[in-house]
Amino acid sequence: MTVFYPNGQPYRSARQTNDKRTESDVVYGHRGMTLEDDLNATNRYYIETDQAVIYKKPTPVQIVHVAYPKRSAAKITEAYFRKASTTDYNGVYRGKYIDFEAKETTYAGYIPLKNFHIHQVEHMKRIKRHGGIGFIIVKFTQSSETFLLDADYLAMFWDASLNGGRKSIPRQFFGDHGYMIPQNYLPRIDYLRVVNEVYF
Amino acid sequence: MTVFYPNGQPYRSARQTNDKRTESDVVYGHRGMTLEDDLNATNRYYIETDQAVIYKKPTPVQIVHVAYPKRSAAKITEAYFRKASTTDYNGVYRGKYIDFEAKETTYAGYIPLKNFHIHQVEHMKRIKRHGGIGFIIVKFTQSSETFLLDADYLAMFWDASLNGGRKSIPRQFFGDHGYMIPQNYLPRIDYLRVVNEVYF
Repeated sequence: MTVFYPNGQPYRSARQTNDKRTESDVVYGHRGMTLEDDLNATNRYYIETDQAVIYKKPTPVQIVHVAYPKRSAAKITEAYFRKASTTDYNGVYRGKYIDFEAKETTYAGYIPLKNFHIHQVEHMKRIKRHGGIGFIIVKFTQSSETFLLDADYLAMFWDASLNGGRKSIPRQFFGDHGYMIPQNYLPRIDYLRVVNEVYF
Repeated sequence: MTVFYPNGQPYRSARQTNDKRTESDVVYGHRGMTLEDDLNATNRYYIETDQAVIYKKPTPVQIVHVAYPKRSAAKITEAYFRKASTTDYNGVYRGKYIDFEAKETTYAGYIPLKNFHIHQVEHMKRIKRHGGIGFIIVKFTQSSETFLLDADYLAMFWDASLNGGRKSIPRQFFGDHGYMIPQNYLPRIDYLRVVNEVYF
Protein backbone atom coordinates (compact mmCIF):
# COMPACT_ATOMS: atom_id res chain seq x y z
CA MET A 1 0.00 0.00 0.00
CA THR A 2 1.33 3.42 -0.91
CA VAL A 3 0.83 6.30 1.48
CA PHE A 4 0.70 9.77 -0.06
CA TYR A 5 1.66 12.99 1.63
CA PRO A 6 -0.26 16.24 1.24
CA ASN A 7 2.30 17.30 -1.35
CA GLY A 8 1.30 14.25 -3.37
CA GLN A 9 4.66 12.60 -2.91
CA PRO A 10 4.35 8.88 -2.22
CA TYR A 11 6.01 7.65 0.93
CA ARG A 12 8.34 4.67 0.52
CA SER A 13 9.32 3.22 3.87
CA ALA A 14 12.82 1.97 4.63
CA ARG A 15 11.33 -1.51 4.69
CA GLN A 16 10.06 -1.08 1.17
CA THR A 17 13.10 0.61 -0.30
CA ASN A 18 15.82 -0.82 1.91
CA ASP A 19 17.36 2.60 2.04
CA LYS A 20 18.21 4.53 5.15
CA ARG A 21 15.76 7.41 4.88
CA THR A 22 15.30 9.23 8.16
CA GLU A 23 12.00 10.00 9.78
CA SER A 24 12.41 13.65 8.95
CA ASP A 25 12.84 12.84 5.28
CA VAL A 26 9.65 10.90 5.54
CA VAL A 27 7.88 13.72 7.25
CA TYR A 28 9.07 16.80 5.45
CA GLY A 29 9.26 15.25 2.03
CA HIS A 30 11.57 17.31 -0.14
CA ARG A 31 12.25 20.01 2.41
CA GLY A 32 15.93 19.58 3.31
CA MET A 33 15.79 16.13 1.84
CA THR A 34 18.71 16.55 -0.50
CA LEU A 35 21.22 17.70 2.11
CA GLU A 36 19.98 15.13 4.61
CA ASP A 37 20.06 12.29 2.11
CA ASP A 38 23.51 13.35 0.97
CA LEU A 39 24.78 13.48 4.57
CA ASN A 40 23.24 10.12 5.42
CA ALA A 41 24.86 8.57 2.33
CA THR A 42 28.14 10.26 3.25
CA ASN A 43 28.00 8.97 6.82
CA ARG A 44 27.21 5.46 5.59
CA TYR A 45 30.23 5.72 3.30
CA TYR A 46 32.43 6.85 6.20
CA ILE A 47 31.26 3.86 8.25
CA GLU A 48 31.64 1.36 5.40
CA THR A 49 35.15 2.62 4.67
CA ASP A 50 35.86 2.67 8.42
CA GLN A 51 36.82 6.36 8.49
CA ALA A 52 34.40 7.57 11.17
CA VAL A 53 31.30 6.57 13.14
CA ILE A 54 28.83 9.42 12.75
CA TYR A 55 25.04 9.07 12.70
CA LYS A 56 21.98 11.25 12.45
CA LYS A 57 19.91 10.97 15.62
CA PRO A 58 16.33 9.77 15.31
CA THR A 59 13.70 12.48 15.16
CA PRO A 60 12.41 13.09 18.70
CA VAL A 61 8.81 11.96 18.95
CA GLN A 62 6.42 12.38 21.87
CA ILE A 63 4.48 9.12 21.95
CA VAL A 64 0.99 9.47 23.38
CA HIS A 65 -0.72 6.22 22.52
CA VAL A 66 0.39 2.76 21.41
CA ALA A 67 -1.81 -0.12 20.27
CA TYR A 68 -0.68 -3.72 20.80
CA PRO A 69 -2.42 -5.80 18.12
CA LYS A 70 -2.28 -9.58 18.59
CA ARG A 71 0.42 -11.33 16.54
CA SER A 72 1.77 -8.09 15.09
CA ALA A 73 4.11 -5.25 15.98
CA ALA A 74 3.17 -2.57 18.50
CA LYS A 75 1.59 0.30 16.57
CA ILE A 76 1.97 3.94 17.58
CA THR A 77 -1.42 5.52 16.91
CA GLU A 78 -0.83 8.96 18.39
CA ALA A 79 2.45 10.83 18.56
CA TYR A 80 3.79 14.34 17.99
CA PHE A 81 7.07 15.82 16.89
CA ARG A 82 9.21 17.36 19.60
CA LYS A 83 11.78 20.10 19.17
CA ALA A 84 15.29 18.66 19.29
CA SER A 85 17.27 19.78 22.35
CA THR A 86 20.53 18.84 20.71
CA THR A 87 21.97 18.76 17.19
CA ASP A 88 21.07 16.16 14.57
CA TYR A 89 24.46 14.54 13.98
CA ASN A 90 27.18 13.29 16.26
CA GLY A 91 29.81 10.62 16.51
CA VAL A 92 33.53 9.93 16.74
CA TYR A 93 36.32 10.66 14.28
CA ARG A 94 40.05 10.14 14.88
CA GLY A 95 39.38 9.91 18.60
CA LYS A 96 37.49 13.20 18.69
CA TYR A 97 33.84 13.85 19.45
CA ILE A 98 32.09 15.38 16.41
CA ASP A 99 28.79 17.25 16.67
CA PHE A 100 26.97 19.24 14.02
CA GLU A 101 23.70 20.55 12.71
CA ALA A 102 22.86 20.68 8.97
CA LYS A 103 20.49 23.14 7.32
CA GLU A 104 19.50 24.17 3.84
CA THR A 105 18.49 27.70 2.92
CA THR A 106 16.70 28.82 -0.23
CA TYR A 107 17.94 32.40 0.27
CA ALA A 108 20.89 33.15 -1.96
CA GLY A 109 22.46 35.69 0.38
CA TYR A 110 21.96 34.42 3.91
CA ILE A 111 20.52 31.81 6.26
CA PRO A 112 18.04 33.02 8.90
CA LEU A 113 19.03 32.24 12.49
CA LYS A 114 15.52 30.93 13.07
CA ASN A 115 16.70 27.80 11.27
CA PHE A 116 18.38 26.98 14.58
CA HIS A 117 17.01 26.67 18.10
CA ILE A 118 18.44 28.20 21.26
CA HIS A 119 18.85 24.69 22.71
CA GLN A 120 21.02 23.72 19.78
CA VAL A 121 23.19 26.82 20.16
CA GLU A 122 23.58 26.20 23.90
CA HIS A 123 24.32 22.54 23.18
CA MET A 124 27.10 23.43 20.74
CA LYS A 125 28.60 25.90 23.22
CA ARG A 126 28.78 23.06 25.76
CA ILE A 127 30.30 20.71 23.20
CA LYS A 128 33.10 23.15 22.42
CA ARG A 129 33.67 23.81 26.11
CA HIS A 130 34.13 20.08 26.74
CA GLY A 131 36.65 19.61 23.94
CA GLY A 132 34.35 18.38 21.21
CA ILE A 133 34.34 19.53 17.60
CA GLY A 134 31.16 21.45 16.79
CA PHE A 135 30.05 23.09 13.56
CA ILE A 136 27.14 23.68 11.23
CA ILE A 137 26.83 22.52 7.64
CA VAL A 138 24.77 24.92 5.55
CA LYS A 139 23.70 24.37 1.96
CA PHE A 140 22.70 27.33 -0.17
CA THR A 141 20.33 25.52 -2.51
CA GLN A 142 20.30 28.25 -5.19
CA SER A 143 24.04 28.04 -5.77
CA SER A 144 24.16 24.48 -4.47
CA GLU A 145 27.18 25.47 -2.36
CA THR A 146 27.68 23.70 0.97
CA PHE A 147 29.79 25.21 3.75
CA LEU A 148 31.16 24.11 7.09
CA LEU A 149 31.19 26.87 9.73
CA ASP A 150 32.50 26.48 13.27
CA ALA A 151 29.83 26.54 15.98
CA ASP A 152 31.53 29.50 17.68
CA TYR A 153 30.43 31.72 14.79
CA LEU A 154 26.83 30.53 15.06
CA ALA A 155 26.93 31.38 18.78
CA MET A 156 28.46 34.76 17.96
CA PHE A 157 25.67 35.66 15.52
CA TRP A 158 23.06 34.22 17.85
CA ASP A 159 24.19 36.24 20.86
CA ALA A 160 24.53 39.39 18.75
CA SER A 161 20.98 38.96 17.45
CA LEU A 162 19.75 38.96 21.04
CA ASN A 163 21.33 42.38 21.40
CA GLY A 164 19.73 43.85 18.32
CA GLY A 165 22.12 42.36 15.78
CA ARG A 166 21.06 40.87 12.44
CA LYS A 167 18.85 37.80 12.50
CA SER A 168 20.78 35.89 9.86
CA ILE A 169 24.25 34.80 8.77
CA PRO A 170 25.27 36.22 5.38
CA ARG A 171 26.50 33.95 2.59
CA GLN A 172 29.58 36.15 2.43
CA PHE A 173 30.48 35.27 6.02
CA PHE A 174 30.54 31.57 5.10
CA GLY A 175 32.89 32.42 2.26
CA ASP A 176 35.17 34.42 4.56
CA HIS A 177 35.13 32.35 7.77
CA GLY A 178 33.75 28.97 6.71
CA TYR A 179 34.98 26.27 4.37
CA MET A 180 33.33 25.06 1.21
CA ILE A 181 32.77 21.32 1.31
CA PRO A 182 33.83 19.41 -1.80
CA GLN A 183 30.94 17.53 -3.40
CA ASN A 184 31.72 14.30 -5.19
CA TYR A 185 29.95 11.18 -6.25
CA LEU A 186 31.24 9.26 -3.25
CA PRO A 187 31.27 10.53 -0.59
CA ARG A 188 28.71 13.08 -1.70
CA ILE A 189 29.56 15.74 0.91
CA ASP A 190 33.09 15.04 2.05
CA TYR A 191 32.98 17.18 5.19
CA LEU A 192 35.65 15.13 6.98
CA ARG A 193 38.19 16.39 4.46
CA VAL A 194 37.43 19.89 5.77
CA VAL A 195 37.43 18.68 9.38
CA ASN A 196 40.93 17.30 8.79
CA GLU A 197 42.18 20.69 7.69
CA VAL A 198 40.39 22.77 10.29
CA TYR A 199 40.48 20.73 13.49
CA PHE A 200 43.52 18.46 13.26
CA MET B 1 -7.36 13.23 29.43
CA THR B 2 -5.46 10.29 30.86
CA VAL B 3 -4.28 7.55 28.55
CA PHE B 4 -3.94 4.08 30.05
CA TYR B 5 -1.62 1.35 28.91
CA PRO B 6 -2.61 -2.30 28.71
CA ASN B 7 -0.88 -2.79 32.06
CA GLY B 8 -3.28 -0.25 33.51
CA GLN B 9 -0.55 2.28 34.16
CA PRO B 10 -1.62 5.81 33.29
CA TYR B 11 0.59 7.65 30.83
CA ARG B 12 1.74 11.11 31.91
CA SER B 13 3.35 13.00 29.08
CA ALA B 14 6.46 15.16 29.54
CA ARG B 15 4.20 18.12 28.82
CA GLN B 16 1.93 17.17 31.70
CA THR B 17 4.60 16.28 34.21
CA ASN B 18 7.40 18.53 32.98
CA ASP B 19 9.79 15.67 33.54
CA LYS B 20 12.13 14.29 30.94
CA ARG B 21 10.67 10.83 30.43
CA THR B 22 11.91 9.20 27.26
CA GLU B 23 9.71 7.58 24.68
CA SER B 24 10.82 4.16 25.80
CA ASP B 25 9.79 4.90 29.37
CA VAL B 26 6.45 5.87 28.00
CA VAL B 27 6.18 2.77 25.92
CA TYR B 28 7.55 0.07 28.15
CA GLY B 29 6.17 1.41 31.38
CA HIS B 30 8.17 0.02 34.27
CA ARG B 31 10.38 -2.24 32.21
CA GLY B 32 13.84 -0.73 32.51
CA MET B 33 12.29 2.47 33.70
CA THR B 34 14.31 2.78 36.87
CA LEU B 35 17.74 2.49 35.26
CA GLU B 36 16.72 4.71 32.37
CA ASP B 37 15.19 7.36 34.62
CA ASP B 38 18.22 7.25 36.87
CA LEU B 39 20.58 7.64 33.91
CA ASN B 40 18.54 10.48 32.43
CA ALA B 41 18.54 12.26 35.79
CA THR B 42 22.27 11.61 36.10
CA ASN B 43 22.97 12.99 32.62
CA ARG B 44 20.88 16.07 33.36
CA TYR B 45 22.91 16.54 36.52
CA TYR B 46 26.16 16.23 34.56
CA ILE B 47 24.94 18.87 32.10
CA GLU B 48 23.64 21.22 34.78
CA THR B 49 26.93 20.96 36.69
CA ASP B 50 28.80 21.30 33.38
CA GLN B 51 30.73 18.03 33.81
CA ALA B 52 29.77 16.33 30.55
CA VAL B 53 27.35 16.52 27.63
CA ILE B 54 25.78 13.08 27.32
CA TYR B 55 22.25 12.35 26.11
CA LYS B 56 20.02 9.40 25.44
CA LYS B 57 19.11 9.24 21.77
CA PRO B 58 15.44 9.40 20.84
CA THR B 59 13.76 6.06 20.26
CA PRO B 60 13.94 5.25 16.53
CA VAL B 61 10.45 5.33 15.06
CA GLN B 62 9.36 4.40 11.54
CA ILE B 63 6.75 6.98 10.65
CA VAL B 64 4.18 5.74 8.17
CA HIS B 65 1.44 8.34 8.27
CA VAL B 66 1.10 11.91 9.51
CA ALA B 67 -2.06 14.01 9.74
CA TYR B 68 -1.87 17.79 9.42
CA PRO B 69 -4.89 19.19 11.27
CA LYS B 70 -5.65 22.85 10.63
CA ARG B 71 -4.41 25.19 13.36
CA SER B 72 -2.75 22.41 15.37
CA ALA B 73 0.43 20.39 15.45
CA ALA B 74 1.16 17.66 12.92
CA LYS B 75 -0.09 14.38 14.37
CA ILE B 76 1.59 11.05 13.71
CA THR B 77 -1.24 8.56 13.30
CA GLU B 78 0.75 5.48 12.27
CA ALA B 79 4.28 4.62 13.29
CA TYR B 80 6.28 1.62 14.43
CA PHE B 81 9.29 1.05 16.62
CA ARG B 82 12.54 0.31 14.84
CA LYS B 83 15.50 -1.61 16.16
CA ALA B 84 18.30 0.75 17.15
CA SER B 85 21.39 0.40 14.97
CA THR B 86 23.55 2.12 17.55
CA THR B 87 23.66 2.42 21.33
CA ASP B 88 21.27 4.54 23.38
CA TYR B 89 23.67 7.00 24.97
CA ASN B 90 26.53 9.08 23.65
CA GLY B 91 28.24 12.39 24.14
CA VAL B 92 31.47 14.11 25.13
CA TYR B 93 33.40 14.06 28.41
CA ARG B 94 36.80 15.63 29.02
CA GLY B 95 37.35 15.85 25.28
CA LYS B 96 36.60 12.17 24.73
CA TYR B 97 33.73 10.57 22.85
CA ILE B 98 31.59 8.47 25.21
CA ASP B 99 29.21 5.76 23.99
CA PHE B 100 27.27 3.21 25.99
CA GLU B 101 24.25 0.97 26.21
CA ALA B 102 22.32 0.43 29.44
CA LYS B 103 20.32 -2.67 30.35
CA GLU B 104 18.57 -4.13 33.35
CA THR B 105 18.34 -7.82 34.07
CA THR B 106 16.01 -9.57 36.49
CA TYR B 107 18.28 -12.62 36.59
CA ALA B 108 20.43 -12.62 39.71
CA GLY B 109 23.34 -14.51 38.15
CA TYR B 110 23.69 -13.23 34.59
CA ILE B 111 22.42 -11.03 31.76
CA PRO B 112 21.40 -12.76 28.51
CA LEU B 113 23.25 -11.56 25.43
CA LYS B 114 19.92 -11.25 23.64
CA ASN B 115 19.50 -8.01 25.57
CA PHE B 116 21.86 -6.58 22.98
CA HIS B 117 21.70 -6.51 19.19
CA ILE B 118 24.46 -7.41 16.77
CA HIS B 119 24.32 -3.87 15.36
CA GLN B 120 25.04 -2.49 18.81
CA VAL B 121 27.99 -4.83 19.30
CA GLU B 122 29.41 -3.94 15.88
CA HIS B 123 28.82 -0.26 16.63
CA MET B 124 30.77 -0.45 19.89
CA LYS B 125 33.62 -2.27 18.16
CA ARG B 126 33.84 0.62 15.69
CA ILE B 127 33.70 3.17 18.50
CA LYS B 128 36.65 1.59 20.26
CA ARG B 129 38.57 1.29 16.99
CA HIS B 130 38.15 5.02 16.38
CA GLY B 131 39.36 6.05 19.81
CA GLY B 132 36.05 6.44 21.58
CA ILE B 133 35.17 5.16 25.04
CA GLY B 134 32.59 2.39 24.85
CA PHE B 135 30.98 0.36 27.63
CA ILE B 136 27.75 -1.15 28.89
CA ILE B 137 25.96 -0.29 32.11
CA VAL B 138 24.08 -3.28 33.51
CA LYS B 139 21.81 -3.24 36.53
CA PHE B 140 21.02 -6.46 38.34
CA THR B 141 17.60 -5.50 39.68
CA GLN B 142 17.46 -8.27 42.33
CA SER B 143 20.59 -7.05 44.10
CA SER B 144 20.14 -3.52 42.74
CA GLU B 145 23.82 -3.52 41.79
CA THR B 146 24.88 -1.52 38.74
CA PHE B 147 28.11 -2.25 36.88
CA LEU B 148 30.13 -0.64 34.13
CA LEU B 149 31.81 -3.15 31.79
CA ASP B 150 34.05 -2.23 28.86
CA ALA B 151 32.55 -2.89 25.43
CA ASP B 152 35.46 -5.17 24.51
CA TYR B 153 34.15 -7.75 26.99
CA LEU B 154 30.67 -7.61 25.49
CA ALA B 155 32.21 -8.20 22.06
CA MET B 156 34.27 -11.06 23.50
CA PHE B 157 31.20 -12.82 24.92
CA TRP B 158 29.21 -12.05 21.79
CA ASP B 159 31.79 -13.54 19.43
CA ALA B 160 32.29 -16.56 21.67
CA SER B 161 28.54 -17.22 21.71
CA LEU B 162 28.61 -17.37 17.91
CA ASN B 163 31.12 -20.19 18.26
CA GLY B 164 29.07 -22.22 20.71
CA GLY B 165 29.98 -20.24 23.82
CA ARG B 166 27.51 -19.26 26.55
CA LYS B 167 24.66 -16.94 25.62
CA SER B 168 24.98 -14.69 28.66
CA ILE B 169 27.46 -12.72 30.77
CA PRO B 170 27.66 -13.98 34.36
CA ARG B 171 27.21 -11.60 37.30
CA GLN B 172 30.56 -12.86 38.57
CA PHE B 173 32.31 -11.56 35.44
CA PHE B 174 31.03 -8.05 36.14
CA GLY B 175 32.46 -8.33 39.62
CA ASP B 176 35.82 -9.52 38.33
CA HIS B 177 36.26 -7.37 35.19
CA GLY B 178 33.71 -4.59 35.58
CA TYR B 179 33.29 -1.76 38.06
CA MET B 180 30.42 -1.24 40.44
CA ILE B 181 28.90 2.21 39.97
CA PRO B 182 28.32 4.19 43.18
CA GLN B 183 24.66 5.11 43.65
CA ASN B 184 23.87 8.34 45.43
CA TYR B 185 21.06 10.78 45.71
CA LEU B 186 22.69 13.14 43.21
CA PRO B 187 23.91 12.04 40.77
CA ARG B 188 21.95 8.83 41.08
CA ILE B 189 24.31 6.66 39.03
CA ASP B 190 27.68 8.36 39.08
CA TYR B 191 29.23 6.42 36.19
CA LEU B 192 31.63 9.23 35.28
CA ARG B 193 33.45 8.59 38.55
CA VAL B 194 34.17 5.10 37.24
CA VAL B 195 35.02 6.44 33.78
CA ASN B 196 37.60 8.71 35.41
CA GLU B 197 39.31 5.75 37.03
CA VAL B 198 39.14 3.38 34.08
CA TYR B 199 39.70 5.53 30.98
CA PHE B 200 41.74 8.55 32.10
